[in-house]
Amino acid sequence: MNAEIIAIGSELLTPYRLDTNSLFLTGQLERLGILVTRKTVVGDGLEDLKAALAESLERTQLVIGMGGLGPTDDDRTRQAVAEVLDRELEPNAEAEAWLRERFSQFRRTMPEVNLKQTLVPRGGEWIPNDNGTAPALWMELPNDRILVLLPGPPRELEPLFVERFVPRLRQRAPRRALAEKILKTAGLGESQLEEIAAPIYTKYDNPQTSVLSSLGEVQIHLRATAENSGKALRLADELSAKLEDALGNHVFARGNETLEQVVGLLLTMRGATLAVAESCTGGLLGQRLTSVPGSSRYFLGGVVCYSDKAKIKQLKVPASTLKSKGAVSAETAASMAKKVRQAFGAKIGVGITGVAGPTGGTPDKPVGTVFISVSIGKRNITKKFHFPGDRERIRRLSAQTALDMVRRKLLK
Amino acid sequence: MNAEIIAIGSELLTPYRLDTNSLFLTGQLERLGILVTRKTVVGDGLEDLKAALAESLERTQLVIGMGGLGPTDDDRTRQAVAEVLDRELEPNAEAEAWLRERFSQFRRTMPEVNLKQTLVPRGGEWIPNDNGTAPALWMELPNDRILVLLPGPPRELEPLFVERFVPRLRQRAPRRALAEKILKTAGLGESQLEEIAAPIYTKYDNPQTSVLSSLGEVQIHLRATAENSGKALRLADELSAKLEDALGNHVFARGNETLEQVVGLLLTMRGATLAVAESCTGGLLGQRLTSVPGSSRYFLGGVVCYSDKAKIKQLKVPASTLKSKGAVSAETAASMAKKVRQAFGAKIGVGITGVAGPTGGTPDKPVGTVFISVSIGKRNITKKFHFPGDRERIRRLSAQTALDMVRRKLLK
Repeated sequence: MNAEIIAIGSELLTPYRLDTNSLFLTGQLERLGILVTRKTVVGDGLEDLKAALAESLERTQLVIGMGGLGPTDDDRTRQAVAEVLDRELEPNAEAEAWLRERFSQFRRTMPEVNLKQTLVPRGGEWIPNDNGTAPALWMELPNDRILVLLPGPPRELEPLFVERFVPRLRQRAPRRALAEKILKTAGLGESQLEEIAAPIYTKYDNPQTSVLSSLGEVQIHLRATAENSGKALRLADELSAKLEDALGNHVFARGNETLEQVVGLLLTMRGATLAVAESCTGGLLGQRLTSVPGSSRYFLGGVVCYSDKAKIKQLKVPASTLKSKGAVSAETAASMAKKVRQAFGAKIGVGITGVAGPTGGTPDKPVGTVFISVSIGKRNITKKFHFPGDRERIRRLSAQTALDMVRRKLLK
Repeated sequence: MNAEIIAIGSELLTPYRLDTNSLFLTGQLERLGILVTRKTVVGDGLEDLKAALAESLERTQLVIGMGGLGPTDDDRTRQAVAEVLDRELEPNAEAEAWLRERFSQFRRTMPEVNLKQTLVPRGGEWIPNDNGTAPALWMELPNDRILVLLPGPPRELEPLFVERFVPRLRQRAPRRALAEKILKTAGLGESQLEEIAAPIYTKYDNPQTSVLSSLGEVQIHLRATAENSGKALRLADELSAKLEDALGNHVFARGNETLEQVVGLLLTMRGATLAVAESCTGGLLGQRLTSVPGSSRYFLGGVVCYSDKAKIKQLKVPASTLKSKGAVSAETAASMAKKVRQAFGAKIGVGITGVAGPTGGTPDKPVGTVFISVSIGKRNITKKFHFPGDRERIRRLSAQTALDMVRRKLLK
């Protein structure tokens, strides 16, 4: 079974708004074994909308339209469907009662314009929406085709689709089960990872493999299908295990955990605590660590020392080190890591200092030069990096790499 | 002149990847007075691709296809265009020489598969790509139609489009000039802003007004068109001035500046310096402040004090204050602001402490309770907030609000 998704709304044709619902829907449909073959974004104009609906209904078995179900003049999806199918829009007493009840729950009288939301094209079925005023629509059409209309706001669309439409579609969709696996890696570039992984995964048609790369992180997504979920899972597990063997401890997660969550878990398991001293990242590392609920168990805090004076006064980095080696140096990074560890009484300290740019680079230490140090007890690991890209990219790669260094240290 | 955009690539039909190029293109086309009427995402399959191209060429005057110009088997855009237009794909000696030269610059021999990239449908014009190996394509078709093919990666597509295609399209596009204005506001919710702004801007058809809301920030975008840019600018300026009058110092920028840039500018103008003490935001405020190049001129640093102990030991917040008032209190926030200002020798200090959740809330201080304090000399402004949403949202609203408090303080 194939599907097309139509996102409706003139705001989605401006430079400011993107349809993101289709990612959610594609994920849901994939689990049902339904493949999305086309996505269309169309404005509010009735003729444009009718054309898009008619074309999709012509081409494919399942058409999902989103948006344009509100009460205003711009909301023309119901009318467009009625005209394309040549069916009357009929008032629906049940839908009307439901909508009046929703308004009265919020102690408001339903404005008459909202009556429009309760019209249903003949043969269609309205579906109540627990998070908004626009009912959704399910329509079965000749030749086994299905038309679904959903409200546009994600907080309405998502629960509605999962609760009301997934069960209906499951009955129609092929019975193949899907199993998904994600391996997240750090410390390897995309091409380095491909050199290791491609010879392994290209041998398999099933699972399908996608490699997705972002800043300092490369993910491998595996999707296996089979007659039943046990078999699908075995297929995914088999390839996943081979990839993990080959990639070793570059793999930091086998699911959706973020790198900061994994570091938090390792710290908790070891009963260790962490403090950070940040210069060029300016707080980014602390922000990522504390984005994890419960991080106060292992993250004690940090110092953002953006000036030499702050490094000396707040962190007690020796002025002589700064003077002889420079603020951006292995020695300063190591001292920052050690001093912040001591100041906060943490087991592990991290120091980051570098040139994020766009100015401040020298021939010796060009923009992108970053020193990261991890201090544990008497040991210190300090590394020098040359990160590519602009200020934002260099800062994000620095924080990501610091997290990965802590992770690798905790694995030992 | 109307345009349709077709994003090509099966990865854009997975739950993981979104076409974002179309936002960039829509913005560029809008400036040329060209309206995007439909966006389509289609996979790599030749028949799907041909259908999408043929339909768009049927409907509209300008069709822009992106992606599928690479050297691999999956890259079928050139072939699809040739088949749809029924024109031969011809080898192009100039394009081939250009591509061989690009490879030799990187001391590599061009693999024979890349020859495919130099094929041009008869009547088309290849356009060199300074940031990749895929040439773009410009084709003028009967009935004044234009077909443009662009490579998919943003870092190739964006400069290529601006440098090579905008000038060509400008000659074809209507001569109406566009002027854009942005007002960015903080401190007002979307509906509060609409109450003030809507009675003013709804009186105007031109400029067109869009209100866009994000965390702690509401933007008003004005777009005026006229016969010439002077007149368009005057139209935009007139409405912009009225809105600014009504919104007062809720407006923090009249352009693309971020709130942290505006705060940086005000600090620089006043010759003032800043230090921050963060608890629940964990470094986010420092990270935003230091995202601005040159921020070391006014941002001295900060302390992330995620535990009571860190607040006492690193910041010297009196233990008695923490004990009697609690870590999340106006008194603690005020003490954090004052102590961090003194420790770093800054003119202004900021303290943030709150309950970001998901746990840690009490009936007295539920999740979302945040105290923010700004300390300047002997004065201290401390405010209590109840921010809605999840952990991430509460943290982002806290940092945004702290920046806005500093801005308002500096305006006085």
